[in-house]
Amino acid sequence: MIYIGVDLGGTHIAVGVVDSEKGILHKEECPTLAHRPYEEVMQSIVDLCKSVIKNSDVNVDSIESVGIGMPGIETPEGLTHCKNLFWHGVTLRKDLEKLLEKSVYIDNDAHAAALGELEFGNLKGADEAIMLTLGTGVGGAMIVNRRILSGYNHAGGELGHVTFVHGGIQCACGRKGCLEKYTSATALIRMGQEYAQKHPESKLHTLKGSLDEISAKDIVDGAREKDAACVAAFEDFCEYLSDGIISFINMLNPQKVCIGGGLSNAGDFLFDKVRKKCTERYFSPLHNDTEIIPALLKNDAGILGAAMVAKQGE
Amino acid sequence: MIYIGVDLGGTHIAVGVVDSEKGILHKEECPTLAHRPYEEVMQSIVDLCKSVIKNSDVNVDSIESVGIGMPGIETPEGLTHCKNLFWHGVTLRKDLEKLLEKSVYIDNDAHAAALGELEFGNLKGADEAIMLTLGTGVGGAMIVNRRILSGYNHAGGELGHVTFVHGGIQCACGRKGCLEKYTSATALIRMGQEYAQKHPESKLHTLKGSLDEISAKDIVDGAREKDAACVAAFEDFCEYLSDGIISFINMLNPQKVCIGGGLSNAGDFLFDKVRKKCTERYFSPLHNDTEIIPALLKNDAGILGAAMVAKQGE
Repeated sequence: MIYIGVDLGGTHIAVGVVDSEKGILHKEECPTLAHRPYEEVMQSIVDLCKSVIKNSDVNVDSIESVGIGMPGIETPEGLTHCKNLFWHGVTLRKDLEKLLEKSVYIDNDAHAAALGELEFGNLKGADEAIMLTLGTGVGGAMIVNRRILSGYNHAGGELGHVTFVHGGIQCACGRKGCLEKYTSATALIRMGQEYAQKHPESKLHTLKGSLDEISAKDIVDGAREKDAACVAAFEDFCEYLSDGIISFINMLNPQKVCIGGGLSNAGDFLFDKVRKKCTERYFSPLHNDTEIIPALLKNDAGILGAAMVAKQGE
Repeated sequence: MIYIGVDLGGTHIAVGVVDSEKGILHKEECPTLAHRPYEEVMQSIVDLCKSVIKNSDVNVDSIESVGIGMPGIETPEGLTHCKNLFWHGVTLRKDLEKLLEKSVYIDNDAHAAALGELEFGNLKGADEAIMLTLGTGVGGAMIVNRRILSGYNHAGGELGHVTFVHGGIQCACGRKGCLEKYTSATALIRMGQEYAQKHPESKLHTLKGSLDEISAKDIVDGAREKDAACVAAFEDFCEYLSDGIISFINMLNPQKVCIGGGLSNAGDFLFDKVRKKCTERYFSPLHNDTEIIPALLKNDAGILGAAMVAKQGE
């Protein structure tokens, strides 16, 4: 089956023609220019969709439907909200369906990422799984019987917004101590900066122009090289992440927990530590079967996932 | 349809013949005497089942199957574990099926309670729900599409064992800061005892022989009467409980959150406060639709729920 996958982000729009067996057949992208009026951004999506269809060898009639993965939500009434794009209740699905003459399905990017891994990546074959995407925040998805579990208003899956430290660090969602304040890439950077203050000898001070510019990868690299500030920050981060993962295992008892986002590139240096910490604290032997694995899909994850949003929607 | 429901607890075994439309037709109970060998406890269950069938007007052939709700788990291999009964891998289901000549289904008591509310109580009509049973610990159940969500090894639903205060109070499960250390009846009692130390004028000091004997209800009653220690403890408790509930709403976006256990008898005094706190901190308007309600079933909850474990198993 062939779908169009639209990876709609705050900086880029990437669109691909996706064969559910073979993967991406052809893809194109353009900048989002998110400050533009909704109609213009929407038109860019339409133009890209038409262009990828034209430039691939696929007949337009063979395309089942269009899936969109984006950092936003669609209400049950069909209104799309997206802070990054300044959309407060636009009729994206309806508008695209009219202009593209195909069914359109919208889901958030974390759900799309999980569906991509389920079809093409490291969640292949898993019936029950959790996906955590560690980036600026923590995106989440729960898979039950190979489908996204999204709840009554399709607004579930906010795994980054469960209380992890009651009364802890202020979160943008309005509450305090949400998991994403302790397990996102942003959180690791904050921990690195804090430990660097206590370690004037840390390489973090001289690596970039200022401490404000260090990345999560800088801290992981520093921890590998035994820089004391990086080692301490990475240790705290792994402790938090493991404790968060165990909570989800106790609740949902998934077959696999898949970790995405740039941090998952840290590989066994991260995963060996997290797996060991989780195994030390499992609730019962029945909770100790869960595999903790990195996401497989990298650059094309957004397009592949968005196409699978369409497949799941059908 | 008619089922046998077995409410198997550490102190009592209660068994009822349950009509899925009309409720309990006849019930009987006996002490568990949990120190006895497994075979004897199992025989007591068999005897009670045979007795309720004999003493009800129901023909044995019209009974579909037998459901058991208990503070334990059955592994996918059919071995039952229950700390309260000192069972470490007994073949309860197989043994009962042989002696009763009926199919037997086993689930934990929190799942059974949720299924009881779903069929006979305040979760009637809910497709997506969460149930929290606040007692010595916190039992949990997630309902998706009117079925218990139990995960890969059927070991999910441990909603009391998600991290709520990372590094917080030691939990019996081995980890620290689990939600049940802050939102169980036991937790409320601890908070009452702690605040009583700071309030020598509190009625908690004279209510019972010692502070060790106060109950969760004593603290709720004291808070109603504006006893300062009780007010402070109850306020903290409601704050914790609300924050825990919002986490589950953000994750699972359920239609209803049902609270069971003795504490739910506190009624609007508890629920008005919890609802207000939750509404003040919802993640998006889509997360603000969830109803937070008390459990309806009281004394017969165990038998009704166990019978619905059988119904769900069929």
